[in-house]
Amino acid sequence: MTADILIRNVRPFGGEPTDLYIRDGWFAENPTQKPAIEIDGSGHIALPGLVEAHTHLDKTLVGMDWFENRVGPTRNDRILADRRAKQELGIDARRQSARQIMQTLAFGVMHIRSHVDVDTEIGIANIEGVIETRDRLKDLVDVQIVAFPQSGMLVREGTLALMEEALKAGADVVGGIDPASIDRDPVRHLDAIFALAERYQKPIDIHLHEPGDLGAFCLELILERTRALSLQGRVMVSHAYCLGMLDGQRQRSLIDALAAERIAVMTVGSPSAPALPLRILRQSGVVMASGSDGIQGTWEPWGNGDMLERAKYLAQRNGMTNDADLSDAANICTFGGAEGIGLTDYGLSAGCRGDLMLVKARTLAEAVALTPQNRTVIRRGRVVVRDGVMSEELRNVE
Amino acid sequence: MTADILIRNVRPFGGEPTDLYIRDGWFAENPTQKPAIEIDGSGHIALPGLVEAHTHLDKTLVGMDWFENRVGPTRNDRILADRRAKQELGIDARRQSARQIMQTLAFGVMHIRSHVDVDTEIGIANIEGVIETRDRLKDLVDVQIVAFPQSGMLVREGTLALMEEALKAGADVVGGIDPASIDRDPVRHLDAIFALAERYQKPIDIHLHEPGDLGAFCLELILERTRALSLQGRVMVSHAYCLGMLDGQRQRSLIDALAAERIAVMTVGSPSAPALPLRILRQSGVVMASGSDGIQGTWEPWGNGDMLERAKYLAQRNGMTNDADLSDAANICTFGGAEGIGLTDYGLSAGCRGDLMLVKARTLAEAVALTPQNRTVIRRGRVVVRDGVMSEELRNVE
Repeated sequence: MTADILIRNVRPFGGEPTDLYIRDGWFAENPTQKPAIEIDGSGHIALPGLVEAHTHLDKTLVGMDWFENRVGPTRNDRILADRRAKQELGIDARRQSARQIMQTLAFGVMHIRSHVDVDTEIGIANIEGVIETRDRLKDLVDVQIVAFPQSGMLVREGTLALMEEALKAGADVVGGIDPASIDRDPVRHLDAIFALAERYQKPIDIHLHEPGDLGAFCLELILERTRALSLQGRVMVSHAYCLGMLDGQRQRSLIDALAAERIAVMTVGSPSAPALPLRILRQSGVVMASGSDGIQGTWEPWGNGDMLERAKYLAQRNGMTNDADLSDAANICTFGGAEGIGLTDYGLSAGCRGDLMLVKARTLAEAVALTPQNRTVIRRGRVVVRDGVMSEELRNVE
Repeated sequence: MTADILIRNVRPFGGEPTDLYIRDGWFAENPTQKPAIEIDGSGHIALPGLVEAHTHLDKTLVGMDWFENRVGPTRNDRILADRRAKQELGIDARRQSARQIMQTLAFGVMHIRSHVDVDTEIGIANIEGVIETRDRLKDLVDVQIVAFPQSGMLVREGTLALMEEALKAGADVVGGIDPASIDRDPVRHLDAIFALAERYQKPIDIHLHEPGDLGAFCLELILERTRALSLQGRVMVSHAYCLGMLDGQRQRSLIDALAAERIAVMTVGSPSAPALPLRILRQSGVVMASGSDGIQGTWEPWGNGDMLERAKYLAQRNGMTNDADLSDAANICTFGGAEGIGLTDYGLSAGCRGDLMLVKARTLAEAVALTPQNRTVIRRGRVVVRDGVMSEELRNVE
């Protein structure tokens, strides 16, 4: 499946033209003998596999009937509508997760962290469905599954036990959600998920929509626990809107603390949520990742899962138009995301996993600004998408 | 060029399936005899020609070398960089405006209001270039040209005379820009452009980036002059960020006044600028239009000119996810824009101009959320784009 492959004349991350060589699924020094396959990269931009650091594979409606959204505007309206839809629409987590994975593979997304619902109505059925997909498609995409208490954990008796069951079943990450505004007890919520993470030796990823000072307080609690348990590099905070709502002094000191504890921050750059101070976060050394969040679901109808387009959204949300800033945004959707979700052997250098994506652009900035389609995607040395066309044997995967 | 044409089985604005008939370039009642051309609409969504109510046709770099953006962050940095680029890059307004028009025609954009720079360095050369394109391509697209003092009017001696020259040469609309923060004298700036509008019987379109209370004050000055000169329905304010920066009471009273004087508001829904209160504006009866602003220029590298995608951006900026809200966003990019820039005979009813666009979606909300490509575009009864393929004789137009 993974022949030796030489990709000629590509520009890694927009740099000088070079050749890339993959042997046995890993990038290697250029070959001394003629490789089995040669591809002409035509000077296109080469990026390592795009990193989708935050989505909900179990909830996408891709390929299903159009869902007419009549949902009210609050987060609670949406959580309720979402739980109802799971029942009424019969969303099959196994099939739907595969559909989204195959859709985003065509864009070059090869690493996905997905939150997957755990609640007292569906139990861990969605976790089991996505695990099946994760294992079945592991040659194409790396999937990390976060056991995610979408409907609340402490406020819904029995959810915590289900979270533990999810981890035993094979979930990769412990999830959390709004310890104060949803779960009504920030200390107990965080103590519970940090305890699970310790017991099962798993990383943590917490949805934190809490606003302003409430969010800052929750962040402090997360920082304290990360420090106390020496979980540096193992904790991600998703959304963290509060960072965009504090005054300069308070914002800076929290950001410095996040950098010190190596807590990663994931932002989707939503145009209607508070904007995170992207430049300050990056300059302060905070690991930044990004994601699509839900794609075509009951929460929001949009999203295609293209993490190169996501880099554009990040830049647009922050009013970044410089070529250097666009390159930075691309970094968040590749290396930043990889570090944030704890990937190893990631990149285009010899010794890294042989995953890459080619995009037809003259500069990296152009690739981000115009997000050209018809990409070429190579996974562990196997050409899975060529100029936008999915390899034939993969076309009916779902 | 415009044969009788029957388009079967389409859903106007997402409504019930019907047939549409165009005779001599105008929508008409269904034919009694067999029409010359029949098209199977396959139940797709039909929209009237998309309305691009705010762009800068003279500044796009579409089809030129990649412009490496190293421009600083302020509006003044950008104005300077833009003026320098016009000189150094040799942007040909005639050719570039045609390139953008042909690119956006493929999306179904058939009505464009473009601001075109007038300044003491280039004089009215750009106006003349875009006029040439406007007249040459009038069978494909309606273009309105705004004489636009991008670099300031009163602060750059001689610009006002050039504005007048532009109108004499054939510009359609009198432009203005930031009467206080750029032109340093809001009363004299507005008096001058309203006087020009009166003398040449032209509508007015003012770029108003002025923030908060300064913007509100400028809006009041615009309201007073619109009322005094009875220019209701003839004035548009572009951007109007201040409307998103005021407290509820002040915001409401200004919005009511705009509705009363029938002053239209154009917003691009930029993710990094203050969000306008879209729902309140629409509910209060303010005519809302939208546009792409600059496409691939020195100001910002992005933009493809797809006004259906723009409807999505408007919804996203306002956190609108309901099907009804998405339909409203589509309305802004069609009927709202048409009213805002003063089009007549616009729509899909008998008696309207025979312009329409077909998009492959199950509902209007899906069309907005996923913005499918490969559209069919019919202009005055002539099929100019079929399933995404531009009619052969139009492929090399520039």
